[in-house]
Amino acid sequence: VRTPKQRFRGVLAYDGTRFAGYQRQAAGTLTIQGVVEEVVTRILGVPTTIMASGRTDTGVHARGQVIAFDGEWRHPTESLWRAINAYLPPDVILNSLAVTKDDFHPRYDAVSRRYIYQCYTAPLRDPLRDHYHWYAGKSINLEAMQTAANCLIGTHDFASFGWPTHGDSTIRTLTRAEAQPLEDGHFRLIFEANAYLMRMIRNMVGTLAEVGRGKLTPQDLADILAATDRRWATTAPPHGLILDHVSYEEE
Amino acid sequence: VRTPKQRFRGVLAYDGTRFAGYQRQAAGTLTIQGVVEEVVTRILGVPTTIMASGRTDTGVHARGQVIAFDGEWRHPTESLWRAINAYLPPDVILNSLAVTKDDFHPRYDAVSRRYIYQCYTAPLRDPLRDHYHWYAGKSINLEAMQTAANCLIGTHDFASFGWPTHGDSTIRTLTRAEAQPLEDGHFRLIFEANAYLMRMIRNMVGTLAEVGRGKLTPQDLADILAATDRRWATTAPPHGLILDHVSYEEE
Repeated sequence: VRTPKQRFRGVLAYDGTRFAGYQRQAAGTLTIQGVVEEVVTRILGVPTTIMASGRTDTGVHARGQVIAFDGEWRHPTESLWRAINAYLPPDVILNSLAVTKDDFHPRYDAVSRRYIYQCYTAPLRDPLRDHYHWYAGKSINLEAMQTAANCLIGTHDFASFGWPTHGDSTIRTLTRAEAQPLEDGHFRLIFEANAYLMRMIRNMVGTLAEVGRGKLTPQDLADILAATDRRWATTAPPHGLILDHVSYEEE
Repeated sequence: VRTPKQRFRGVLAYDGTRFAGYQRQAAGTLTIQGVVEEVVTRILGVPTTIMASGRTDTGVHARGQVIAFDGEWRHPTESLWRAINAYLPPDVILNSLAVTKDDFHPRYDAVSRRYIYQCYTAPLRDPLRDHYHWYAGKSINLEAMQTAANCLIGTHDFASFGWPTHGDSTIRTLTRAEAQPLEDGHFRLIFEANAYLMRMIRNMVGTLAEVGRGKLTPQDLADILAATDRRWATTAPPHGLILDHVSYEEE
């Protein structure tokens, strides 16, 4: 009796530092998708494509990247999950794995994606925080950043902050843009939207940081948004950015 | 008029991941000492040797590595400090720099060195903590670890946990060995001693973790210490270890 093909759904976390982004590229370029496909293909014994909720850029991390793939597996799902983790490199881990409905698609079914951008302020850069956090300078005005971030919430043409990967529209709906203070000089920016443009979050963060440093006013940021012109945004580095959570309707 | 030579003292922090340890090696091997000497030599215009409080192993980090060097500098010390930081790579920073007495030596004058070893427990490894923390498993018994750690405090022959870099004696005096719980599954081990053997801290941490996991009892650890035999210790990886602080008498 042949085991029927099933669709599996999982949540992936990774440290993006060593990787040329999520999406598979030519052989010889290390990507998250490439590594996970290699592992799953080896375990299932047939070439397997991994679907994901979206791409992450070179150097960007994830805590909640949702993936799915089809495969025949006659043992408990837990043993497949353990086998995948046994073969994954130390900087990638599959946090969970379950059988899902046959037509589940992590990208098309997603209703919202939450990203977190981690920053810290300190008298000097701190090499023991730099790996996952962006050094935002000696001090920053988080209230001004929040005032500016509020201008970004809603449905806008975000052409000033990025470009589309599919189609032409640069209109997106941002439902959350929050500057959250944490302990010990740390703060983070939380964004939630159904979809983003390429580089959109890093360009919003870099430009919001200019507001926090007093180099731009919240009104300047509103003007940059209205300009729909990519020349004015400042880009923050990838290593502070984490794909934190992807939401689906059934949740 | 020639500027007199002065001795400068500074505190260095670094992410040790990319480096083959602190101590300079042959050309073509990246070390902290090599990088700092290259930078200071370029700024002062003469070959300059950097003295340090001690070596750190490959992959070990520092927050409080004390260094010293001699040089002629006619401008304010602050400008030398800024120049050094401008040339250092992003994973190394000089946190302070001041003129000190001519015979100050960061290694021979040190009275105590504090190391911190950072760990976390969680259901699974977390790639977004792994860079500076060791994954110690699903859960750990910190009380048992502390009971075992107490056996290590005092003057003992630590031959079971390491070997000397200078001389033959394997006797050292450990004044602090503390298992400290932190938030969110994190904990850290804090050690303080005038001097350590090579690999001593990583071997103490690895063996204490075996106690925390219930694979060894605190009495087993006391027996391993008494055995003065390196075959029994378990070694923890370097990336959780940080040289935190070096104390001097005048402080």
